[in-house]
Amino acid sequence: MGVLVVGSLGLDTVETPFSRVEDALGGSATYISLAASYFSGPIHLVGVVGEDFPRKYIQMLDEHNIDISGLQIVAGKKTFRWTGKYHYDLNTRDTLLTELNVFESFDPVIPEERKKTRFVCLGNIDPILQLKVLDQLTEPKFVVCDTMNFWIESRKAELFELIKRVQVLIINDSEARLLAQEPNLIKAAKKIKEYGLPHLIIKKGEHGALLFSDDIIFSAPAYPIELINDPTGAGDSFAGGFIGYLYKTQDTSAENIKRAVVYGSTMASFCCEQFSTKGLENLSYLRVHDRYRDFMSIAHFDDKD
Amino acid sequence: MGVLVVGSLGLDTVETPFSRVEDALGGSATYISLAASYFSGPIHLVGVVGEDFPRKYIQMLDEHNIDISGLQIVAGKKTFRWTGKYHYDLNTRDTLLTELNVFESFDPVIPEERKKTRFVCLGNIDPILQLKVLDQLTEPKFVVCDTMNFWIESRKAELFELIKRVQVLIINDSEARLLAQEPNLIKAAKKIKEYGLPHLIIKKGEHGALLFSDDIIFSAPAYPIELINDPTGAGDSFAGGFIGYLYKTQDTSAENIKRAVVYGSTMASFCCEQFSTKGLENLSYLRVHDRYRDFMSIAHFDDKD
Repeated sequence: MGVLVVGSLGLDTVETPFSRVEDALGGSATYISLAASYFSGPIHLVGVVGEDFPRKYIQMLDEHNIDISGLQIVAGKKTFRWTGKYHYDLNTRDTLLTELNVFESFDPVIPEERKKTRFVCLGNIDPILQLKVLDQLTEPKFVVCDTMNFWIESRKAELFELIKRVQVLIINDSEARLLAQEPNLIKAAKKIKEYGLPHLIIKKGEHGALLFSDDIIFSAPAYPIELINDPTGAGDSFAGGFIGYLYKTQDTSAENIKRAVVYGSTMASFCCEQFSTKGLENLSYLRVHDRYRDFMSIAHFDDKD
Repeated sequence: MGVLVVGSLGLDTVETPFSRVEDALGGSATYISLAASYFSGPIHLVGVVGEDFPRKYIQMLDEHNIDISGLQIVAGKKTFRWTGKYHYDLNTRDTLLTELNVFESFDPVIPEERKKTRFVCLGNIDPILQLKVLDQLTEPKFVVCDTMNFWIESRKAELFELIKRVQVLIINDSEARLLAQEPNLIKAAKKIKEYGLPHLIIKKGEHGALLFSDDIIFSAPAYPIELINDPTGAGDSFAGGFIGYLYKTQDTSAENIKRAVVYGSTMASFCCEQFSTKGLENLSYLRVHDRYRDFMSIAHFDDKD
């Protein structure tokens, strides 16, 4: 049945202290789909691009067993574009330019044969559109939802509505503090879960990720990367690895969700190592699993007593 | 034979968003000794106070099996005092006042019968004094050393000399970046280890701690504290729990050093829960071990494949 991924596809211009790329492949749905593709297919992508969207990108997605029959290509219009610049430490960035283009009038339509999909990942787009997707699904079993500061500030009501209808919300630490209006991260997490959310994941970039699931708290380490080339898409890659592993194993127990968090972190670490989607294009499940084992050895300690 | 602890004892005035205490017990040697005291004694404290140092504090240390025969009490002089104010999120603070007083002319003298001590913790004081302590020891087997930004900037040559003579350096992430002149934390850690250091620990506050030991990297989670009352002394408590556990087990293998990092994090978490040294005064080894088990459950995940 596969995983349904809805989100943005875009052309990114990214500047880091080391380099700069122009019109590189980007967008939340792109990263999520690529990361998820290493676990188990098929991945059904729903999104929109303009007629300027390079064919080579569509071909690359296709080569990763990503079904693009739900991708709208709008004639006479341009693809969504984002330009950003990372600061010296790569932990913060400025958005220099956002051109919505085809995204301005995006209305996600789930193909008839995908409406029964049970594992769903809603990439970071307007919560109103995320809700529209949910309204079209007949039996969403496990929905993972990403969002960002901008929507927390401008679409709070819709976000709260969404939180009640998804199984997992993935946000970063500053977004969690903002959403809960609470500086202590642990208190903030509890507050957000109480809005009606089974599982909350808080990404902390180079400090790993936290999972709040039922009454357990799980802390996943970050992978020690010596050369981060481009953090763009790391959060989306996390979401992709997370949903990909859960779909593959068909096990949504708390223990398995912990593993999925580490697989998410694994895909995020590959993503940061190269510009754009390059770090996700030439992997294998074996390499992914090897890195998962590295995560285990980084985090493992026992009790002598 | 016990653990030798050298560092400061002071009277702290601390303001947080929640409360304020005046002339509370503080100082690196105080926190280190108290934290270490829960593992295995005796702890031999070497430091200096003025004649205004309250007797009740000396009594409290004594009740924790801390040997204060190496504590100099200088007649006619005042104890070291520090005044600090924490910001809203408790992650950053301003030092409002530092009165060195007796510390201005402190010359650490290791009592004859302690010169053979093998497990040593050098609290955060002038590296020149830390070197003077090492010069007096005949067979230091395992020396743990703490330092801070101020000394990295003002005593770089002495710090490098020190790094070559200790087994473990404990610093925080911004200090590691400053010492190595390198923004990437993993690269910074490797660079510092190459100065001639067997084990480096980088504390990351609410994000846990990293251990770089031989060619392994270990990431310890932070304890999810909902109410941090006062982070003062957390780093010292970490060092105390770390050395206390290693002395107790007499095992300095990399596997056991990982456990010691978690025991250090355990003591730091207790420290933050109450003002001044209060969080370290009424513990038991059973409570410490219970929290260690909590850390295990927070960090544990396995591999299904």
